[in-house]
Amino acid sequence: MSDATTTDLYEVTMTLSYLREGLTRPATFSLFVRDVPADRGFLVAAGLEPVLDYLSGFRVDADDVEVFAAALDRPSEDAEPLLGLAFTGDVRAVPEGRVVLAGEPLLEVTAPLPQAQLVESYVLNQINHQTTIASKCARCVMAADGHPVVDFSLRRTHGTEAGYQAARLGAMVGFAGTSNVSAAYAEGPAVGTMAHSYIEAFGTEEQAFRAFARTHPGPVTFLVDTYDTERGVATAGRVLKDLGLGPGCAVRLDSGDLGTLAVRSRRILDGAGLNEVRIVAGGGLDEFAVDRLVRSGAPIDRYAVGTKAGVSADAPYLDSAYKLVEYDGRPVMKLSSAKVTAPGREQVFRRPGYADIIGLLDEPPPPGGEPLLKTVMRRGRRAQSGNRRSRLDDARSRFADDLAALPDDARRIASPVAPKAVLSQPLTELADRVRHHIETDVLAGTR
Amino acid sequence: MSDATTTDLYEVTMTLSYLREGLTRPATFSLFVRDVPADRGFLVAAGLEPVLDYLSGFRVDADDVEVFAAALDRPSEDAEPLLGLAFTGDVRAVPEGRVVLAGEPLLEVTAPLPQAQLVESYVLNQINHQTTIASKCARCVMAADGHPVVDFSLRRTHGTEAGYQAARLGAMVGFAGTSNVSAAYAEGPAVGTMAHSYIEAFGTEEQAFRAFARTHPGPVTFLVDTYDTERGVATAGRVLKDLGLGPGCAVRLDSGDLGTLAVRSRRILDGAGLNEVRIVAGGGLDEFAVDRLVRSGAPIDRYAVGTKAGVSADAPYLDSAYKLVEYDGRPVMKLSSAKVTAPGREQVFRRPGYADIIGLLDEPPPPGGEPLLKTVMRRGRRAQSGNRRSRLDDARSRFADDLAALPDDARRIASPVAPKAVLSQPLTELADRVRHHIETDVLAGTR
Repeated sequence: MSDATTTDLYEVTMTLSYLREGLTRPATFSLFVRDVPADRGFLVAAGLEPVLDYLSGFRVDADDVEVFAAALDRPSEDAEPLLGLAFTGDVRAVPEGRVVLAGEPLLEVTAPLPQAQLVESYVLNQINHQTTIASKCARCVMAADGHPVVDFSLRRTHGTEAGYQAARLGAMVGFAGTSNVSAAYAEGPAVGTMAHSYIEAFGTEEQAFRAFARTHPGPVTFLVDTYDTERGVATAGRVLKDLGLGPGCAVRLDSGDLGTLAVRSRRILDGAGLNEVRIVAGGGLDEFAVDRLVRSGAPIDRYAVGTKAGVSADAPYLDSAYKLVEYDGRPVMKLSSAKVTAPGREQVFRRPGYADIIGLLDEPPPPGGEPLLKTVMRRGRRAQSGNRRSRLDDARSRFADDLAALPDDARRIASPVAPKAVLSQPLTELADRVRHHIETDVLAGTR
Repeated sequence: MSDATTTDLYEVTMTLSYLREGLTRPATFSLFVRDVPADRGFLVAAGLEPVLDYLSGFRVDADDVEVFAAALDRPSEDAEPLLGLAFTGDVRAVPEGRVVLAGEPLLEVTAPLPQAQLVESYVLNQINHQTTIASKCARCVMAADGHPVVDFSLRRTHGTEAGYQAARLGAMVGFAGTSNVSAAYAEGPAVGTMAHSYIEAFGTEEQAFRAFARTHPGPVTFLVDTYDTERGVATAGRVLKDLGLGPGCAVRLDSGDLGTLAVRSRRILDGAGLNEVRIVAGGGLDEFAVDRLVRSGAPIDRYAVGTKAGVSADAPYLDSAYKLVEYDGRPVMKLSSAKVTAPGREQVFRRPGYADIIGLLDEPPPPGGEPLLKTVMRRGRRAQSGNRRSRLDDARSRFADDLAALPDDARRIASPVAPKAVLSQPLTELADRVRHHIETDVLAGTR
């Protein structure tokens, strides 16, 4: 079966009904995040790359029809109308790496209704997850304040696909590397040295360190906290001096009070004349812990973040939605409590200081307003240039630029304040008109 | 490249060193969870199925060697010693679906050291993630207190692999179905009806409901909260009566105050003589919300849980470890602060009331103690019987049995108290001996 079956059953039941009823005119769905989580001052748009891969290859094959029919618990012929359904629509989106705010469309899909509906689950899944993780990783980079940050999250992400994405998204927001071998192959440099098991297998740290240097000539990093951190640092220093190593080498702290241990480790290394040997620290770090260490002046040169970044532990999901905003030229919205959505095809206009305006696609941009959504797919084909790697590089530059322009309040690690986008006058008026229409005409018959 | 490259770089650097130094004797690694998260009274062992798939197919091929060399930033020949490395070891594990406690090994891998090391990242990733999610889903089932629970999480899980697993793990702990089509195909029944977009595309609820029933003969579920929930229920009721439908049909509430709306919906349906039409509720639910609704007596017949279960929102990871406990017959442990681990190959003996004892593999079981770890792989081949589906059914039965035997404190939704396993006398004595050996012999030279 193809990726087309990675969907929710209701997409299938609805799509079959649209086809049967002839509801195949163009529809626009808008994907946005309702609120920014408590400890986030902004979000980083991400997930578009796999979404465009998915949409450009989307096609329901005969095996998929069998799977759909089985899920419906109906004979195959009942799912036959889906056979051959491909994605031939357009996608406008905020490019990966850009900073986005609550309520702003990250992506709008315009396609014949059955197509635009059937792809919902996958598109939401990817954008939601990846925007969540990129936004968390961005804060780790900010907290490190210029010190390199690397990704060690693979062992605790939600599966290996999520591990791969954590590495890619870290690279997007400025991580210096990842421990994840397959992700590093595609997305950026790999980093890593040894685990406690390595020391224990040899028995003593000295034997282990010497063996490691034999296998891996050149700069090495020694893990020093298997038995007693300060003794471990002393042993590492002795072996490094003995082998004539120093520049490019490091010791790694993986547990305990990292700030205190870093100070003591630095003292031991400097005392041995190993001023050029760096200190890498990790173990349960997130942006809050990195921020505390950096602000305390801990002599840590490089930070490894893992679990808490890789799963965005304090906010592991976003309140995102993929909402129908227009069908066959008619703007639509829902009214049920607490989830009112704006109708119509939209554009986000960014003005200096993140005074963003969410407006209608066809309204004139406000003075100084930069439109954020670009056309990234036309009639089912990517409208982007470059290859994966160059697109990731572009995303990294975009994030660096957007981060530099962020207000201080939004950049804070503790209690950040996210800028709020406002709705344009034309969009507000359209929402009022559509609401009035629903209340007076659509619901009239049900009073 | 194969799954072998889904690993951390340090597994590769260590493995190359083991091979070069001749450290290829059998090693045992033990995977356990250090602590149970705050709002968990127990954990549900999960992730073994994909781990055994991975290990039985593990083999480093020529492409993998290229990827490893690239990650090491070294010529291919430096990674050549890894070519052809396959997994030929044994695995003992707690079968999926069993309840486990902090400190208890979920899995022990015994294999030549290079093999047992290289597979670490993948094994940890799968067991950690899946045990996390299964444990969360289990609480949703408990909170629902006999009402069916279904999985709607695909759109918010960390990628589609995680979405698939959420469906499988929900089925393992007793969910009645999943919205995820591809997962349902392999693991259990699919459920789902329509989204708000479906209503909006038609314009009015009545048109949408009638069209849905035309496409899907038989029992239907109508989403009633697109514009105004109570009017939506009334419209749904009118269409159902008109079509002569009732038994097996339902209305779905997706937002708002679900308890109050369910009471009002029930009244409207009963008033229309539709006593057999059920009420399904979802929208941001977790076990705490389900528990409140159930205890308030809300007339909700079926609960849909999504995001918060699918990402285990309040505890999205476990503090798990894959620790070397024995190399070439020699028990090992680490001593660094706060992460001391017990040495040696272990067994968990479950006594009535979850008075578990963690002991050594070769010690006699205590009276009434049931050994939890079973041999599930021998010399690289599965020792399990059955197929995926029958193994999932077995896991479901195991969980049901273990849940029934859990102490009340551990079953509580609010502030549960997890039972604590104790270490056996022989294991405690071994840990003392190994610690003494490290302190007097291993560290002696570094004083």
